[in-house]
Amino acid sequence: MTTLPASMFAVVQTHDGYSASATGPVIEDASDWLAEAEVPLPEPAAGQVLIRMRAASVNPSDIHFIKGEYGQPRVKGMPAGFEGCGDVVAAGDGAEGLIGQRVAFVAAGSGAWAEYVVTQAMMCIPLRPEISDEDGAAQIVNPLTAMAMVDIARNAGDAFVVSAATSQLGKLMCSLGRDLGLKPIALVRRAEAADTLRDLGAAKVLVTTVDDVAQKFAALSATLKPRVFLDAVADQLSEQIFCAMPNGARWVCYGKLSTEMPQLTQMGQLIFQGKQIEGFWLTKWMMSTPPADQMRVVGEVQARFADGRWKTDISERLGLRDLVSNLVSALKKSDGKVIITP
Amino acid sequence: MTTLPASMFAVVQTHDGYSASATGPVIEDASDWLAEAEVPLPEPAAGQVLIRMRAASVNPSDIHFIKGEYGQPRVKGMPAGFEGCGDVVAAGDGAEGLIGQRVAFVAAGSGAWAEYVVTQAMMCIPLRPEISDEDGAAQIVNPLTAMAMVDIARNAGDAFVVSAATSQLGKLMCSLGRDLGLKPIALVRRAEAADTLRDLGAAKVLVTTVDDVAQKFAALSATLKPRVFLDAVADQLSEQIFCAMPNGARWVCYGKLSTEMPQLTQMGQLIFQGKQIEGFWLTKWMMSTPPADQMRVVGEVQARFADGRWKTDISERLGLRDLVSNLVSALKKSDGKVIITP
Repeated sequence: MTTLPASMFAVVQTHDGYSASATGPVIEDASDWLAEAEVPLPEPAAGQVLIRMRAASVNPSDIHFIKGEYGQPRVKGMPAGFEGCGDVVAAGDGAEGLIGQRVAFVAAGSGAWAEYVVTQAMMCIPLRPEISDEDGAAQIVNPLTAMAMVDIARNAGDAFVVSAATSQLGKLMCSLGRDLGLKPIALVRRAEAADTLRDLGAAKVLVTTVDDVAQKFAALSATLKPRVFLDAVADQLSEQIFCAMPNGARWVCYGKLSTEMPQLTQMGQLIFQGKQIEGFWLTKWMMSTPPADQMRVVGEVQARFADGRWKTDISERLGLRDLVSNLVSALKKSDGKVIITP
Repeated sequence: MTTLPASMFAVVQTHDGYSASATGPVIEDASDWLAEAEVPLPEPAAGQVLIRMRAASVNPSDIHFIKGEYGQPRVKGMPAGFEGCGDVVAAGDGAEGLIGQRVAFVAAGSGAWAEYVVTQAMMCIPLRPEISDEDGAAQIVNPLTAMAMVDIARNAGDAFVVSAATSQLGKLMCSLGRDLGLKPIALVRRAEAADTLRDLGAAKVLVTTVDDVAQKFAALSATLKPRVFLDAVADQLSEQIFCAMPNGARWVCYGKLSTEMPQLTQMGQLIFQGKQIEGFWLTKWMMSTPPADQMRVVGEVQARFADGRWKTDISERLGLRDLVSNLVSALKKSDGKVIITP
């Protein structure tokens, strides 16, 4: 093992706590929220490991977080970034077993957009050799969210609705749904995406930018009877979709891509049709789901990446030192993930 | 037993099915929705009874129903009215045991605003002699709703919020909450109602028409941490109340007194704070709750009316033949129920 440096390069947060606004996962200038810095190497405490980063990813939740619109407060000067993969190079008491292993991780001590990262050993998943660093860098947040949410849908019936279906997470949920014998109904903004989504597993694809989308969805809903709406948009159209769903439907919001504040136009449906509106947060799922169930899901996720059923579509690769200057333009390319390398 | 007539006087619905609108439980002219009629005496089928009405009540759900804004379709020419009490004078197969008994009932065959009513035997509750006809006429819908909803609150913590707390149902929930050692937070529109509600059992009373009601509620919420909001109003203030509640809060909507369509201003709370929005409908509760649990609740309700802990406040008494012409003016008196007699 090489000697560890005393300091490291990192992309750090420039604000503390929460913001008062909620303008969605879009930024105009990354330097409003992030700065480059040379910071002391973080030290793993008991139960923690130090990881030399190989690749990190950019999730919508990262953007919500640096803007102060996420469920955890920011800490000025701390590296940003929730997810990545790398090699465990040091460990605190009780975590020594991971030293030398290549792991996927969720950053729960310091951020992933740095040369080194400290996190809990229980937030690390040793990676099989056939999984690439890039797939390893997007191995947890989206795949576990997809598995957990499709599980909610599966328990409620066979058809379910996925908004923003061209996102990495949307695509995972469509393909997983098909594999499980379910009928994913994919909502997309661009008609060109329809074929890709059908190939991936969507039973039906609906383009949301056409005028009569609500009527079209109502017709689909009457036939397929979807009971769960996995929604990352949460705008007025989402509310219309929910209103057109059958008795007992659940609107499960896991993201807020739109800044629109939807009106509840048919409150009576909650009363008479037993519908409900709720949220999904992976962090809470991880804290409330027994480790054995999580490990089963993690094993299924890795098997899918290992045999090629799942793959992370990369829209752009950025060096850590180019992140602040190039993140905004990289995020403008849709249909893929931005991957960061040291 | 006297011979039964071939026909009866009834106040009947003048529309079929559902309306396309949702303008709340307010009417300007009862003759828009109701008519007086002499109709054939309904006949009890197997499992049903025929009841000679002693007293019937007017619930907000009756007004929603005759306007076509309730969870069941209207049938033109059928008597209106969901609830009452009376004497069982005939029965279909399997329901003969109720003949001769004075019962409280929910009308599930023909409406309660008529000289005679047909309903399911299982929708009848034999009344103890010490309970008056007027209390018997409002023995089921409000008291069972109160018991079932306060049960939801009790399972989630000790404090809960009740809107429209001066309604009969609101008052029942405050008094029941106190009896169970809980802390009801009552929302009222008029400051004059505060003392009455405190006497009845509200731990705190908040007047919703003052400017800084949201801030005042936020302060209360931070101290008492109510997890359940039992709401019959469902306007934008309801949404603000919900947003000021702590993690895991549930907005349980059981009525829609306001015609406002509330905007969801903090969707992220559903995700990160595990909050949810849902409805409560007594009909569904009765269909999904085991009979033994219902009977336990029914027994508790009767005990409360029998020993005087609960009482139906009457705002107006109307003869069945005066109902169409006088209902609108009778409903303008708040803080009590309109009771109908034959």
